[in-house]
Amino acid sequence: MIVVMDPGATRDHVDHVIKMIEEMGLKSHPIFGTDRTVVAAIGDKRNADKSSLEQAPFVDKVVEILAPYKRASLEVRSERSTVATSPGGFAFGERKIGVIAGPCSVEDRTKLIEVAHAVKEAGAIGLRGGAFKPRTDPYSFRGLGEPGLEILAEAREQTGLAVCTEVMDVNDVALVAKYADILQIGARNMHNFNLLVAAARANKPIMLKRGWSATFDEFLLAAEYIMNEGNDRVLLCERGIRTHESYVRNTLPLAIIPAVRRRSHLPIVIDPSHGTGHAYMVPSMCRAAVAAGADGLLVEVHGDPERAMTDGAQSLTPEVFAATMSELTPIATAVDRSV
Amino acid sequence: MIVVMDPGATRDHVDHVIKMIEEMGLKSHPIFGTDRTVVAAIGDKRNADKSSLEQAPFVDKVVEILAPYKRASLEVRSERSTVATSPGGFAFGERKIGVIAGPCSVEDRTKLIEVAHAVKEAGAIGLRGGAFKPRTDPYSFRGLGEPGLEILAEAREQTGLAVCTEVMDVNDVALVAKYADILQIGARNMHNFNLLVAAARANKPIMLKRGWSATFDEFLLAAEYIMNEGNDRVLLCERGIRTHESYVRNTLPLAIIPAVRRRSHLPIVIDPSHGTGHAYMVPSMCRAAVAAGADGLLVEVHGDPERAMTDGAQSLTPEVFAATMSELTPIATAVDRSV
Amino acid sequence: MIVVMDPGATRDHVDHVIKMIEEMGLKSHPIFGTDRTVVAAIGDKRNADKSSLEQAPFVDKVVEILAPYKRASLEVRSERSTVATSPGGFAFGERKIGVIAGPCSVEDRTKLIEVAHAVKEAGAIGLRGGAFKPRTDPYSFRGLGEPGLEILAEAREQTGLAVCTEVMDVNDVALVAKYADILQIGARNMHNFNLLVAAARANKPIMLKRGWSATFDEFLLAAEYIMNEGNDRVLLCERGIRTHESYVRNTLPLAIIPAVRRRSHLPIVIDPSHGTGHAYMVPSMCRAAVAAGADGLLVEVHGDPERAMTDGAQSLTPEVFAATMSELTPIATAVDRSV
Amino acid sequence: MIVVMDPGATRDHVDHVIKMIEEMGLKSHPIFGTDRTVVAAIGDKRNADKSSLEQAPFVDKVVEILAPYKRASLEVRSERSTVATSPGGFAFGERKIGVIAGPCSVEDRTKLIEVAHAVKEAGAIGLRGGAFKPRTDPYSFRGLGEPGLEILAEAREQTGLAVCTEVMDVNDVALVAKYADILQIGARNMHNFNLLVAAARANKPIMLKRGWSATFDEFLLAAEYIMNEGNDRVLLCERGIRTHESYVRNTLPLAIIPAVRRRSHLPIVIDPSHGTGHAYMVPSMCRAAVAAGADGLLVEVHGDPERAMTDGAQSLTPEVFAATMSELTPIATAVDRSV
Repeated sequence: MIVVMDPGATRDHVDHVIKMIEEMGLKSHPIFGTDRTVVAAIGDKRNADKSSLEQAPFVDKVVEILAPYKRASLEVRSERSTVATSPGGFAFGERKIGVIAGPCSVEDRTKLIEVAHAVKEAGAIGLRGGAFKPRTDPYSFRGLGEPGLEILAEAREQTGLAVCTEVMDVNDVALVAKYADILQIGARNMHNFNLLVAAARANKPIMLKRGWSATFDEFLLAAEYIMNEGNDRVLLCERGIRTHESYVRNTLPLAIIPAVRRRSHLPIVIDPSHGTGHAYMVPSMCRAAVAAGADGLLVEVHGDPERAMTDGAQSLTPEVFAATMSELTPIATAVDRSV
Repeated sequence: MIVVMDPGATRDHVDHVIKMIEEMGLKSHPIFGTDRTVVAAIGDKRNADKSSLEQAPFVDKVVEILAPYKRASLEVRSERSTVATSPGGFAFGERKIGVIAGPCSVEDRTKLIEVAHAVKEAGAIGLRGGAFKPRTDPYSFRGLGEPGLEILAEAREQTGLAVCTEVMDVNDVALVAKYADILQIGARNMHNFNLLVAAARANKPIMLKRGWSATFDEFLLAAEYIMNEGNDRVLLCERGIRTHESYVRNTLPLAIIPAVRRRSHLPIVIDPSHGTGHAYMVPSMCRAAVAAGADGLLVEVHGDPERAMTDGAQSLTPEVFAATMSELTPIATAVDRSV
Repeated sequence: MIVVMDPGATRDHVDHVIKMIEEMGLKSHPIFGTDRTVVAAIGDKRNADKSSLEQAPFVDKVVEILAPYKRASLEVRSERSTVATSPGGFAFGERKIGVIAGPCSVEDRTKLIEVAHAVKEAGAIGLRGGAFKPRTDPYSFRGLGEPGLEILAEAREQTGLAVCTEVMDVNDVALVAKYADILQIGARNMHNFNLLVAAARANKPIMLKRGWSATFDEFLLAAEYIMNEGNDRVLLCERGIRTHESYVRNTLPLAIIPAVRRRSHLPIVIDPSHGTGHAYMVPSMCRAAVAAGADGLLVEVHGDPERAMTDGAQSLTPEVFAATMSELTPIATAVDRSV
Repeated sequence: MIVVMDPGATRDHVDHVIKMIEEMGLKSHPIFGTDRTVVAAIGDKRNADKSSLEQAPFVDKVVEILAPYKRASLEVRSERSTVATSPGGFAFGERKIGVIAGPCSVEDRTKLIEVAHAVKEAGAIGLRGGAFKPRTDPYSFRGLGEPGLEILAEAREQTGLAVCTEVMDVNDVALVAKYADILQIGARNMHNFNLLVAAARANKPIMLKRGWSATFDEFLLAAEYIMNEGNDRVLLCERGIRTHESYVRNTLPLAIIPAVRRRSHLPIVIDPSHGTGHAYMVPSMCRAAVAAGADGLLVEVHGDPERAMTDGAQSLTPEVFAATMSELTPIATAVDRSV
């Protein structure tokens, strides 16, 4: 942390800041410049609210220097992590890119089983589908609940696909973990810290979706919450951010792929369905994500998107999904991966 | 809803859209323009996923026309709502503007009681203070829990202030409701629909904070979730949004005050502490909020902000808070209110 | 500037950074922390591209500490500036808040003269109106040009109002300066540095509108361009920023008022018409701006907004404008100003 | 356009809106729904300010349905456009993806010639380099001016690369056009309509960069300004938008590639250097852009980025650029293109 003093600060003001820094258990290091004095604070007291120093007299501002996450960072672990969907099963972060596909929500048994076979055949390693749906509108379909989870489990039986499904509530963690291979934390819940902790303790891989307006550090700190409970199997999932753009449902910032590589050892998965909101954009964003180095994709596929109960506008048909998977093969090869 | 067809759409494509609209239980109304055909869909089927129509052949886009909330809207209730903090107690939405003040988190008994007396004396009608703190960083202070609630209740005993405190978890609703007069739903939880429903059922007023990047309609829909459970005592609280601006912690969009007036009957409260992130900005934003027509303010006040465990940078001292309250009096009078 | 080294940086990497800093003519000051080494660079070489240091081996990132503007800052001038519209005329930055009102564009002589008298009577000190209109759409009305300027000048003759009008092109500066009292630089041109320099040299006060997505520092740097030409008569005008919000045309961040006070000596003017885009929001945002400490307001007023050729949705009628001005009087008094 | 009436609107209010629409020369088409009446306005009067209708009594809001651009749209021209850099020269929009590379600014002759040869050898078809630099900070390097243009022309002589360079001022158009093959309109000038018109008339291809916070429609309307002058040789260039993200200089929204394909016939070029601001992100974003279907790339390359006078942090070395070009070859093949 660097405390920047006002131009008018006297030695007494600087001494007060030094005293405050030392009260926090940190070492202080003042630098007297030509225009300004700045005081560097050295040491690792992450639980102090350092921004409070902004209130000390003649302090201009406080600038944080270090990222606040540790376990998710390359400082703690320099080799890339791999996250297996099950013991001996597919692992994210290795050469093969893991594609998880399926409908937004589980609507009925026949349709789900059908789409599961279709995405399996096209090359997916996982099946997505919500049994508990977070809906902005209280009047819309909220999911089938446990019967939906049972259908997902049956589809796994038949296809061998790993099941990835969202858990929305601390009280549902045990139930969802009974059926799912991967617990998904939705974008709306990235900051729901109790849920992060409860999900972490279920000891399953966690698909952690970035919040709509979360910063990079906040995203990694949410992973840190999970890892702090002893669960290192975190998949970071970028699903787009809120911006002024209205031709998309969300803006998909693919530069997060190299950013995660530079700062963290965790695998990064891209969701181009939520990341754009329009089916016609999904194939090109799948190709772009693979070319940029993504470790996985999360794609909405529905047998009859025109009649989907949720997210119809962004779901691919099984045919378009299969064609997209074919297009991905040479691109994966080009970046020394497979799909 | 308006379905806009592509220029190349034939009569068959239009008929297909008409058929889809009627399958949803809506009436269709095609308009054949010079360049384009558009099909209006009339009726109220809020649980259909109309955006799916975007996937029909030769559909350009789907434009929603009506706001998706009802109970929170002026269409359902045209006179302004008032929300009492307790039977016969202070009511938001009447002439007097309700100011709730206090520390970000309850840190210890003596300090909290002291600051409660100070804000009471300055004119506050409520006391804020977190016992359960949502923290982005897993290594920082997460609140005292139930002992913190007990301290808040004691402060109420001594001062008569209404206690407003955050509930973060479905499982804590009963506990928090035992002590609090107003249940606060934090910005991170505005989309946590299970929590909205559980809190609504506690039958207390709800201080509903707008999510960092929630749209206006999403904010009102969150209120709708609460009202849909039979609890109409919702206080909408604007606390700033995420933008590209970095001289503030959040950008405070005060135009939401007239926007809420035009669309909803619910009271609107402004939180200039989180809405700016810097104590030096808080007094002027309090004045602006009152001048713009706010029904309430939520202000962080701490006895020793330099040493606050959370949000020190944005907390006022009791002295500055009292001075700010004095400044608000003539402004409230100017807009035919009191404070 | 602070250069943060990677955890793996050796003494050689640090020495390389020190050498680069000294090549730039700055002094270096390394601090060896527990986890990281950081190197502070001291001195004032504003024309070096310091961010290039990010490319040196084992540099994690470069953090700027000081604001890049000088003349606009309180470091150079600590007392508040006043900006007179003409020698001996109204001055922004003194006790009286200056309100400039009028139509978006000059449409015809009769209507303009009429509205000028109306706003004068209501208490405005200036008249706005565009003769050259920047239009996003090439097919829309682009202004009357010089005849429009002549009409504005005639309105000044009759009313004594100062004329504030936009200049969009380096080649028009002399022409516009011949008629106008205040040259307006539009939001789209805040980064048009040639125009800033040319307008500065006309030796008139400059109404500098903040760009839609300009940062605070970029806004002040645009003022610096003008002041660097020897023209200190800059009025900073906030007119709203682009965000994800769609219930407004722009989001109006009034916290810029205390931010400007803390960092700059220049007057700050608020434009609630562009800042919201909807006439019904303008009166409350005028009140809020005055309460927050604005030095001036820029308000669109049109005799028949339903039929305005430009910006009809955000223009007040003369009647609503007069009522708004009345409402502002007690609020101005409350903050020790007048209107 | 759809005019949505308030729930309380009477037949008289609707008739008033119908009259206003007809005054604009449009046909009106009222639809009486269960909750609301809406009035569709049909016809093409692009120069009317339709939003003014929002001011009519009992109008809730006005919703635009059609995109305001024409010549840039697929409605006017359904086959893809190609834009040749010179008669018989390389054409954007054909199978081969055009890569333009070079330094941010021309700093000196020897270095520029050297880097031109390097990028040519690596496969670039164009050379970038600024002679006139828009700088946010008045104290930083503003470019060499005409001598810089001469150096660029000499580099073209030696290498055959097409020269792409920015024109910032109406008065410089003739000068820049004398030396350049492609005139670049910078992001800061996308809304500088006089410059768009002047550049269009120089009858050279225009590299039109999207403004930092421009919407999709505004971007296409800027192209429309150019095309409206009879110059159809527009290259749309996405260079990133301003968002809340701070780990990048700008957020690069690659979904604009399929969006442009769906709405326009113009070629789309991606600038991953400004689009991210960090050299380490550029290679992966080049790969992503090609995989997503870009027609061209604009990449900053500098012989010694640590010492670049501008944009050092985002410039590739010639070695990294050559390696990136090699990586692009199989990806281009995968999407049926070449590089």
